[in-house]
Amino acid sequence: NEVVNIHLSKKPEWFLEKINPLGKVPAIQKDDKIVYESAVCCDYLDQVYPGNKLIPDDPYQQARDRILVEHFGQVTTQYYKMLFGPSENCAAAAETLKKGLMEFDKEIQKRGDFFGGSEPRMIDFMVWPWFERFHATEKLVNQIFISDGSMPNLTAYMDRMLSVPAVQKCRLSTENHLEFYQSVKNGAPNYNVGL
Amino acid sequence: NEVVNIHLSKKPEWFLEKINPLGKVPAIQKDDKIVYESAVCCDYLDQVYPGNKLIPDDPYQQARDRILVEHFGQVTTQYYKMLFGPSENCAAAAETLKKGLMEFDKEIQKRGDFFGGSEPRMIDFMVWPWFERFHATEKLVNQIFISDGSMPNLTAYMDRMLSVPAVQKCRLSTENHLEFYQSVKNGAPNYNVGL
Repeated sequence: NEVVNIHLSKKPEWFLEKINPLGKVPAIQKDDKIVYESAVCCDYLDQVYPGNKLIPDDPYQQARDRILVEHFGQVTTQYYKMLFGPSENCAAAAETLKKGLMEFDKEIQKRGDFFGGSEPRMIDFMVWPWFERFHATEKLVNQIFISDGSMPNLTAYMDRMLSVPAVQKCRLSTENHLEFYQSVKNGAPNYNVGL
Repeated sequence: NEVVNIHLSKKPEWFLEKINPLGKVPAIQKDDKIVYESAVCCDYLDQVYPGNKLIPDDPYQQARDRILVEHFGQVTTQYYKMLFGPSENCAAAAETLKKGLMEFDKEIQKRGDFFGGSEPRMIDFMVWPWFERFHATEKLVNQIFISDGSMPNLTAYMDRMLSVPAVQKCRLSTENHLEFYQSVKNGAPNYNVGL
């Protein structure tokens, strides 16, 4: 298999024409089969490569995981407001973000070492990319929403996730994230950071 | 089972506290199990009541159906712009909506009598509620985007759907939809229309 990275603010014509007319990433092509939308890609891969099933078999647990992802949408909304919204709203967005994360601090206490339970599962890999950026974000916007020690369960979770081999293989460092967001703020996003 | 309809712009406290903190409908409660988010509810019900499976077993077909729902999001966006956006943008939104529907007119030609193939399946029941409102919407905004005969496959599809027993049982008439949207425009949405 081959990974093709594209320029996200100047998407190539072939991507829109042959892969995803909606323009979003990620997208998967295997022979003549094309799949896109993050959640759909995750479910599809889990079904066609069943070696290490990452999505629960139990319908209710499956539903609860998808609902948790929906709740996480409240976190990501505040995240973007904080980074790209008017700067006078930044502190309020950080506060709301923190309140949203508190819910996850409680949730992981109920669930175990990971949101998936005793092992990291799909739900963890779906929310992790946001956690990975939090330290860079705190520096960039000069707001503290996770490093003040008020969410010990989530902090321990982040440490645990950093030791997961799949995370180590794919992660970008805080420096990478800082470099990327700086390039966005300068009006010339550098999508090659960390590649 | 019991259906509880709630006032969507004055949501009761018990709904937010005990059922769905995100406030959205539909939500399902069975014993101590609670599920919400439309797509999650559909998948959950299909798995726990497998008598008449409405979602394809094949992972690729399943993915393509979910992707089609994502594409339909472009239609619904224009739909809301047309109904509730500034009136000077209404004609343009109707034009874009029509372009979006053209894609579905082609798609159903490839798929059969229904988006699910020879029988209506989950994908049909997910997009149908929008189709059901189209004639009311044309009247309300005084724009024609589906009744001009330019999408014969979709028009035939709509007739076919209207003869499906499940649709007949749950549908609201064009008059119902007109009455509801009129109440929204008057600032006092009447959620009891058709009940």
